[in-house]
Amino acid sequence: MSEQIFEKGQHCGNENFIGNAFINYLTKDVDLDCKVYDVYFEAGARNNWHIHEGNGQILLCTQGIGYYQEWGKPARRLTKGNAVEIPPNTKHWHGASPDNDFTHIGISPNVSKGKYIWLEPVDEEQYLQATK
Amino acid sequence: MSEQIFEKGQHCGNENFIGNAFINYLTKDVDLDCKVYDVYFEAGARNNWHIHEGNGQILLCTQGIGYYQEWGKPARRLTKGNAVEIPPNTKHWHGASPDNDFTHIGISPNVSKGKYIWLEPVDEEQYLQATK
Repeated sequence: MSEQIFEKGQHCGNENFIGNAFINYLTKDVDLDCKVYDVYFEAGARNNWHIHEGNGQILLCTQGIGYYQEWGKPARRLTKGNAVEIPPNTKHWHGASPDNDFTHIGISPNVSKGKYIWLEPVDEEQYLQATK
Repeated sequence: MSEQIFEKGQHCGNENFIGNAFINYLTKDVDLDCKVYDVYFEAGARNNWHIHEGNGQILLCTQGIGYYQEWGKPARRLTKGNAVEIPPNTKHWHGASPDNDFTHIGISPNVSKGKYIWLEPVDEEQYLQATK
């Protein structure tokens, strides 16, 4: 694990993730209708396909090597300093590369207008195809 | 300057800042009603007193030593890994310490509901008192 900015948070569980990912919520005190969190993925870990209905999401990559993929498109390789703007209502996944861990800050704007829709896992074939 | 995550952006000018600060806008492609940016302050640099009317702001500190102060309160010293949640309609300033540079990510939620109200500079006496 390279140098992290934020402390490692709670395990994300495996209902909506494959492998081990950890989330640290950074907004706790003031309701600004915006949630900010740091997510650390071990190598090979990724979330299931999902949709941010109504609000979208922003990712800021701070460490390691990861991927972001929208349904039907090639995956985008991510490293430190990349930002990803995810439109509302767009089926996608994100996570680490097979051989390197990965950390991103996640920002969920307009939480009151948004809803997570969790879908099927990114299976081994999809994952290896996306990250090869 | 310690290791940075994002590239150094454009000079912020000196209408609303004392010293040299630089801003790199990270959200460019999708309108999520949320702006995200990286701000680098040279040692001694700080913004003027200001208010985020209607929406507030979130700061994520990634490098160096800085300060955040709300009007009438002691300043809070900031280092890597600190998050600051700034309520709407709260007079405050942020910036570097006198002897160390400082970098934070800034997040402006609900941009459509928000307005920057720029006020007077943080004069030398206020700044030295806050950061001593």
